[in-house]
Amino acid sequence: MFPHDPNDKKTAILVGVWTVIAERGLQGVSIRTVAQAAGVSPGRIQHYFSDKKKLIHASVVALVEGAQAANPEALGDPSDPITLWTLLTHQLAPAAQSRSGMSVHFAYLAASATDEWIREFLADARRGLLAKVTQCLIAQSPELTDARQRAVELVALADGAAQGVFLGTLTTTSAETMLHEALADVLDHCAGHLRNHSPGSSPTVARESTIRHPVTR
Amino acid sequence: MFPHDPNDKKTAILVGVWTVIAERGLQGVSIRTVAQAAGVSPGRIQHYFSDKKKLIHASVVALVEGAQAANPEALGDPSDPITLWTLLTHQLAPAAQSRSGMSVHFAYLAASATDEWIREFLADARRGLLAKVTQCLIAQSPELTDARQRAVELVALADGAAQGVFLGTLTTTSAETMLHEALADVLDHCAGHLRNHSPGSSPTVARESTIRHPVTR
Repeated sequence: MFPHDPNDKKTAILVGVWTVIAERGLQGVSIRTVAQAAGVSPGRIQHYFSDKKKLIHASVVALVEGAQAANPEALGDPSDPITLWTLLTHQLAPAAQSRSGMSVHFAYLAASATDEWIREFLADARRGLLAKVTQCLIAQSPELTDARQRAVELVALADGAAQGVFLGTLTTTSAETMLHEALADVLDHCAGHLRNHSPGSSPTVARESTIRHPVTR
Repeated sequence: MFPHDPNDKKTAILVGVWTVIAERGLQGVSIRTVAQAAGVSPGRIQHYFSDKKKLIHASVVALVEGAQAANPEALGDPSDPITLWTLLTHQLAPAAQSRSGMSVHFAYLAASATDEWIREFLADARRGLLAKVTQCLIAQSPELTDARQRAVELVALADGAAQGVFLGTLTTTSAETMLHEALADVLDHCAGHLRNHSPGSSPTVARESTIRHPVTR
């Protein structure tokens, strides 16, 4: 959540924007409300951000970059199973614990219907995630002929799983097990076939192995 | 989107709430702004809804019930492939076309972090969807031993797909193809295995068959 030094004034302002969004929605954001939430003067905000729109857009960028900074494993070697696992599961902890952070994410999604800049930024971030997941799948399973398509499926499943955890209809553990099994199915073409014929054993292995070495082939 | 007669004053008020949310966010909702959007007097709104919170909660119920009314196939016979297909794809058209409707949905999701009533209502709707998908899977593939788990996966994939279509990172056609293949994998345990060994043919069939008879076993 802290893209820069947490003591930095600019960061305090952007955290202030998230606080206002979590409490009052995106429409509650103004130079005045953010100044109050961040404990800075309105003049200080205007020093960094010339208007409300720039302030909101900077807060979108900070949320996405903050999520990346909080998950450095996602930027690792594409051939490392931990890189792929982090890319697919980094939303689960915020969905379960930092409910206001996830709420701000949904507020940005809602705003993307009318704010083209936000939509394009979020879509770009999503395309970046898809490209990185594709890269990992190719590195970890060179025989895959449809890595891009499998990446699209895994990312959609990860998004849906995070939404379920956020709403409370899915536990973090069951979301992890689901993503682990889907990943195993992709990396080992016949895993789904095998699983259906040997129920009981593999899900247990999957659940335990997610802790440090999520992907075993 | 119209749970009752569109000429009905109460419906006009709830549509007015959605309009205000799409334009100004949930925090923009007040007796005054909704009265203006719906073209009714503030007194008329207070006749139906004693306060702003009740007005917002009624609009959440109307959105969910409106989605159900717009997709009567989803309430059909669990053994009918169209019922299952509609349950999994009913979000795609709103995500692509009715961008403000989907935006209102994300605004409710965002609000669910702090409004326990909204969270519980949305979670209940989600549990209802999961139960219905599970019922369909059992009816259409009695040999499935993990129908509930497969339903959880399919619903997560459907949620993620709708989010991708809304953001524009996924086309409606590719989302449909993805859901169709996932469904085929579940209904025919070895489909994933077969697909990986005969690429090219089955995706084409899948894409064409989604038009009227999505699920062929």
